[in-house]
Amino acid sequence: MAFSFRLQATSGRARAGRLETPHGSVETPIFMPVGTAGAVKGLTPRDLTEVGAQIVLANTYHLLLRPGDALVAELGGLHGFTGWQGPFLTDSGGYQVFSLSSLRRLTEEGAFFRSHLDGAAHTLSPERSMEVQMNLGADIAMAMDECPPYPAPHSAVEAATARTTRWARRSQAAQRRSDQALFGIVQGGVFLDLRERSARELVELGFPGYAVGGLSVGEPKQDLHRVLDHLDPILPPDKPRYLMGVGTPQDLLEGVARGVDMFDCVLPTRNARNGQLFTRRGKISIRNARYRTDPQPPDPDCSCYTCRTVSRAYLRHLHLAREITAATLMTLHNLAYYLDTLRLVRQSILLGRFEEFRGEMLRSLAVSAAEGL
Amino acid sequence: MAFSFRLQATSGRARAGRLETPHGSVETPIFMPVGTAGAVKGLTPRDLTEVGAQIVLANTYHLLLRPGDALVAELGGLHGFTGWQGPFLTDSGGYQVFSLSSLRRLTEEGAFFRSHLDGAAHTLSPERSMEVQMNLGADIAMAMDECPPYPAPHSAVEAATARTTRWARRSQAAQRRSDQALFGIVQGGVFLDLRERSARELVELGFPGYAVGGLSVGEPKQDLHRVLDHLDPILPPDKPRYLMGVGTPQDLLEGVARGVDMFDCVLPTRNARNGQLFTRRGKISIRNARYRTDPQPPDPDCSCYTCRTVSRAYLRHLHLAREITAATLMTLHNLAYYLDTLRLVRQSILLGRFEEFRGEMLRSLAVSAAEGL
Repeated sequence: MAFSFRLQATSGRARAGRLETPHGSVETPIFMPVGTAGAVKGLTPRDLTEVGAQIVLANTYHLLLRPGDALVAELGGLHGFTGWQGPFLTDSGGYQVFSLSSLRRLTEEGAFFRSHLDGAAHTLSPERSMEVQMNLGADIAMAMDECPPYPAPHSAVEAATARTTRWARRSQAAQRRSDQALFGIVQGGVFLDLRERSARELVELGFPGYAVGGLSVGEPKQDLHRVLDHLDPILPPDKPRYLMGVGTPQDLLEGVARGVDMFDCVLPTRNARNGQLFTRRGKISIRNARYRTDPQPPDPDCSCYTCRTVSRAYLRHLHLAREITAATLMTLHNLAYYLDTLRLVRQSILLGRFEEFRGEMLRSLAVSAAEGL
Repeated sequence: MAFSFRLQATSGRARAGRLETPHGSVETPIFMPVGTAGAVKGLTPRDLTEVGAQIVLANTYHLLLRPGDALVAELGGLHGFTGWQGPFLTDSGGYQVFSLSSLRRLTEEGAFFRSHLDGAAHTLSPERSMEVQMNLGADIAMAMDECPPYPAPHSAVEAATARTTRWARRSQAAQRRSDQALFGIVQGGVFLDLRERSARELVELGFPGYAVGGLSVGEPKQDLHRVLDHLDPILPPDKPRYLMGVGTPQDLLEGVARGVDMFDCVLPTRNARNGQLFTRRGKISIRNARYRTDPQPPDPDCSCYTCRTVSRAYLRHLHLAREITAATLMTLHNLAYYLDTLRLVRQSILLGRFEEFRGEMLRSLAVSAAEGL
């Protein structure tokens, strides 16, 4: 079988597992760097290997517009096209149609929109999303969902959730690649009854993995935690769970504590380009004048290439001079930090001491933040 | 002795040699990638090692303005600051004062100018240039020269050349680091009598290396060649010769054929960022629609990381999507090509068959250009 998941250990509700995909295995919990247009901005495939990336996310919306999914298919799918030989996951494209394009019309059939690049008209339906994702050839594809805005009334979220189930069924019916696993996406906003109904309907359809979508869209953190707490006993324990678009290092810990196995987010990569570094002692903004002559590595406790090689003063200089090497070096560090953090999280789960690890790490981040690093 | 040069072989007038510097040896002829602000744009130090870089050029003008030479000194000079552990060369800063700043006044004392970044007033004299370069701590520093515009009348070039000698003497007097070699710069425009006088005066002063400046500023190629031909027997054979700011792969071959050992130019790095690739079959512009679905590596005869990993179609996509990974991948290739070319040139000199190599390479580039690749 091309795709499988094995739960290896639990510590409280935190889970350590192993995903097998046609392009290699992934040890969970895992963070997936975002390679929007087929590249993680500023990095090469070997940089990804070096920071410990095991699976990369690519965006269906961006790739279908440019260079086009047919072209990617012609060049061997994402693996042939990009040079990244490990596993890929593609989203359905739906979320970015809502957030980036000028959406013209949303119907039961799908979304009719104009490209944010050239205004060209496109349709994205569950069937078309699957067609694009089959052309892209990622190891994991996502069923198209309808993600309601936040806040929205119960009735509107209920309608979007029901449609998400119908679209999940259509996605499943359209899926024809045996080397590609299709995940369903649980919707339902911050309403626990809708979340529960969505999860039960998707589990009834039966997917090799389940994502939790529609969170981190502006709702309070407690709502995010409540939803995850509520879903944990409903989602099947032997399938991977993916919390979409989340988040900060703290969010990752809170997600793992509630049974999440997979994460993706643009934070580490986007922040790196804006001069924001994540460190074991909290976030630092490299533009800050206090780093002007600071000979320390970005994160003194980090062993990534950037921290082994350059100082905060140098990164600050390169960032202020708008040198693209700054983006590369800071992206390398931020991703190494995220991936290293989840490696330690996993270890603590295997050792049955995740709660202690989580407590120590949250305290350390909080103390550093209070001290202004 | 911290710095030495040994001529190892000649083939015609082409020379193979070996520079010893405090930060390692350099096999000549060599091309020096340009790291303007202390980084080769888009690359990390390990990328430079991988493409075969042996010595990197950094720009005094840029670094004195930002982050400031005192800061670089405080952080251990360029080697401590940037993470590149091999040899560095810094220019005097004079050329970029003339080309980038708003120059307020040029006198026998030096240049009074305003920064192109913030308009702040600065002075660059031979003494200040040496002070900055000693702070930067490169293995090779350059004496400040006056580079007259092209075209300019004989009398104006004569005055600039005479001043260049006086400034070379002042630079020499101001030089106080025993771990830094100071090169003199021959000026004289396209006038052979002035070039000869300049070279003889500098040789009389005695430098561990000689640069040829003020070329590739708009003059016909034959003038460049005539000047190099004329200087070859005048410059001491046991010292390295550096042709500043040159050039294309063809220019490098023509320079080596006329006794040049060292080159620098922004062409391979700047062109990479503009989507221009140098290949063994000539230049290609990756924006060209013919590469839209081209599965070939940028240069099928190249073994660099980029050519081993990605296709022209992928690079074209990344470049059009303005992904910075495109700049990194194409810069890696262009530099690998330049450095590999000079490695083969050196080999042909050691084997006594440089002329054959040069002929074959020029023909191959010409044929490919005629065929439109």
